[in-house]
Amino acid sequence: MSSDYDKLSKTFAALANTTRRAILARLAEGEATVNELAEPFNMSLPAISKHIKVLERAGLIVQGQKAQYRPCTIDVTPLQQISQWTEQYRHIWEDRFDRMDDYINQLKQ
Amino acid sequence: MSSDYDKLSKTFAALANTTRRAILARLAEGEATVNELAEPFNMSLPAISKHIKVLERAGLIVQGQKAQYRPCTIDVTPLQQISQWTEQYRHIWEDRFDRMDDYINQLKQ
Repeated sequence: MSSDYDKLSKTFAALANTTRRAILARLAEGEATVNELAEPFNMSLPAISKHIKVLERAGLIVQGQKAQYRPCTIDVTPLQQISQWTEQYRHIWEDRFDRMDDYINQLKQ
Repeated sequence: MSSDYDKLSKTFAALANTTRRAILARLAEGEATVNELAEPFNMSLPAISKHIKVLERAGLIVQGQKAQYRPCTIDVTPLQQISQWTEQYRHIWEDRFDRMDDYINQLKQ
């Protein structure tokens, strides 16, 4: 852990924005061009392109190379890594839930 | 989705830093004072306090109110929310894994 800003940090930073998360949700349904992505958000092309660049640098989006038509596709690998990272804390929220459950059962008796 | 910086964005932003994630990992083992947290990171108290403030604002840490001894405790609720958020993409990485599996089986035949 030499740097404060590693791969996982890059993913978390990219996801810290509702528009970027909405872009990912759209791409989960299938590939889309930058124009198609800009439409529902009522944003300028430069603004949406900036968000796409952040997602691309985090490895969450891959942009095609065909000149005229460069569709964006989602790459869920970083999301899978985040999901795996949160797993180390699952026992804490599950323990808490169990304790709450015990407490409610005590109240009922 | 009125703002780009909602509750989930705050959590993601707080996690986009290896030191802050290491603080959470330490607190997952049990409560600790700011001094105890500063030690393993070889950081100044003001530097570590700044990280703690970010985690606190994201609801990931609760700091006790006793004047001399204000231990920090982890609150995993935001991590649980992130875990739930990633679940919507799970079918994509599982589908991809299944396709890879099919492909390997084809190669074997």
